[in-house]
Amino acid sequence: MPHQLIKKVAIVGGTHGNELTGVYLIKKFQKFPHLIERENFNTLTLIANPKAVEVCIRYIDTDLNRCFQPEDLQNPKLINYEQMRAKQIAQYLHQEKVDFIIDLHSSTAHMGVTIILNNDNCFLLRLAGYLSTVNPLVKILQYSQKQKPSYLRSLCELGLAIEVGSVPQGVLNGYFFLQTELVLSQILDYIQNNNQGIKQPIYNSFFIYKQLETIDYPRDEQGELKAMIAPQIKDYEPLYPNSPMFLGFDGQEISYQGNSTCYPVFVAEAAYLEKQIAMCLTIQQQVTLSDDFGE
Amino acid sequence: MPHQLIKKVAIVGGTHGNELTGVYLIKKFQKFPHLIERENFNTLTLIANPKAVEVCIRYIDTDLNRCFQPEDLQNPKLINYEQMRAKQIAQYLHQEKVDFIIDLHSSTAHMGVTIILNNDNCFLLRLAGYLSTVNPLVKILQYSQKQKPSYLRSLCELGLAIEVGSVPQGVLNGYFFLQTELVLSQILDYIQNNNQGIKQPIYNSFFIYKQLETIDYPRDEQGELKAMIAPQIKDYEPLYPNSPMFLGFDGQEISYQGNSTCYPVFVAEAAYLEKQIAMCLTIQQQVTLSDDFGE
Repeated sequence: MPHQLIKKVAIVGGTHGNELTGVYLIKKFQKFPHLIERENFNTLTLIANPKAVEVCIRYIDTDLNRCFQPEDLQNPKLINYEQMRAKQIAQYLHQEKVDFIIDLHSSTAHMGVTIILNNDNCFLLRLAGYLSTVNPLVKILQYSQKQKPSYLRSLCELGLAIEVGSVPQGVLNGYFFLQTELVLSQILDYIQNNNQGIKQPIYNSFFIYKQLETIDYPRDEQGELKAMIAPQIKDYEPLYPNSPMFLGFDGQEISYQGNSTCYPVFVAEAAYLEKQIAMCLTIQQQVTLSDDFGE
Repeated sequence: MPHQLIKKVAIVGGTHGNELTGVYLIKKFQKFPHLIERENFNTLTLIANPKAVEVCIRYIDTDLNRCFQPEDLQNPKLINYEQMRAKQIAQYLHQEKVDFIIDLHSSTAHMGVTIILNNDNCFLLRLAGYLSTVNPLVKILQYSQKQKPSYLRSLCELGLAIEVGSVPQGVLNGYFFLQTELVLSQILDYIQNNNQGIKQPIYNSFFIYKQLETIDYPRDEQGELKAMIAPQIKDYEPLYPNSPMFLGFDGQEISYQGNSTCYPVFVAEAAYLEKQIAMCLTIQQQVTLSDDFGE
């Protein structure tokens, strides 16, 4: 099977209007387009939620990055700002024949530089292996296959998000701006070399984190928080059975009741409080690529 | 001169509705009031901006913590939500004869545990010396005397803020929750011992940071940012003349033009982007207390 050719890449920022890393990177690329130009494919840039960017909030009516389920895009009854915007974006990327999407995000959790894959497409896994090889900061997170694809990046089979943090909402963080720019440039280089059929250095074996489930805060009958996340909990660090997970306002520790070690991510993500998510649990999995994997 | 007696202390959270450290500490104290009870003075607790807390935003109409100028409190034309709320709070704390205010805040800047004093009242400076002695994490920040007092804490001569960070807006951070609770408890202990005339251990000499000026981001003619804060800039670390201060989106560094070393604080505070503040500059100053200072 020949290597997969990528002809057009969309780089998207401002899917959440208060995640300024992506917003200002897109503005920079729009001013200095040579930074994202490569020889054998085209790129386009997009501010996904301009109204939310303007007022520096996550969204106007509803979270844009949950509006891309195929049936929702077809549903004429969904007409609020983000629902309409999702339809426009889907149509635009389809018309432009975009076959690879990179969506730029930041998290208030200490996620470092995380590449989020929606699926286990073999091209994406090879790219993940490449990034793990050339960039020691990169972690690979794979969303559950059970989830319906509702993310902007799920408009293509080849879609990913770059999620950096901790970056507070509304903050332009220079360090993570530069890290995002670097890993984005590494992705574009990989695509260019892949298009030319050039073999690229890849560890045959690397780790990914697979999303298992989300955990809400302990709450009382009124839905009020009864506890905060235990200060020991860190993104991508092992959480062992019976070790502290929450610290109650009454001083009592609440421990993790699972049977096996997991790795929390999105720990205390500000935007997930309203989604009743204190953290997401993942398992660490070793991926081993065969030499002809995906080719 | 006898030591100053404190009879009633107000502990305030939620002056900014998305700074959850203070909000949840106040809720905890309201549920477990013995935690803030002391022998020889009374305490009261207050959620300053309940409407903003409810929707987890900084404010509804205007920043509550800029509404406490005496002339504004007297001005019948100022009737938006926070302006009215400021008048209610001022009246309430006056009726209750509160003579010490502790206002709980968090910042998206890496401020650690900062005690902010509005003035150089000698009682506050002795307390600052005490906290510097018993708590190695504490830094003391003194606001400019030139500024008009518009903060909630400026309703009393004896007022301070505890400002912790980095805590993203909308995040309940366990580590800084516990640190705030600790330093608050140390302040209450100091007040109790002071009321009893007990001498407390104080280094005679400690550092404070005095606010000099605020610095905006470099902007173009349309007011758009042209640069981000240079990643080297850290809160409370020295910024030398001609060293990098901003990094332009065109790749050019913009250096600090001042003549003497300063110490930036509130570096990339999310809430200050709209106030056109990228950071505040301070000078480091050694305070030496004489043995009978303030007594």
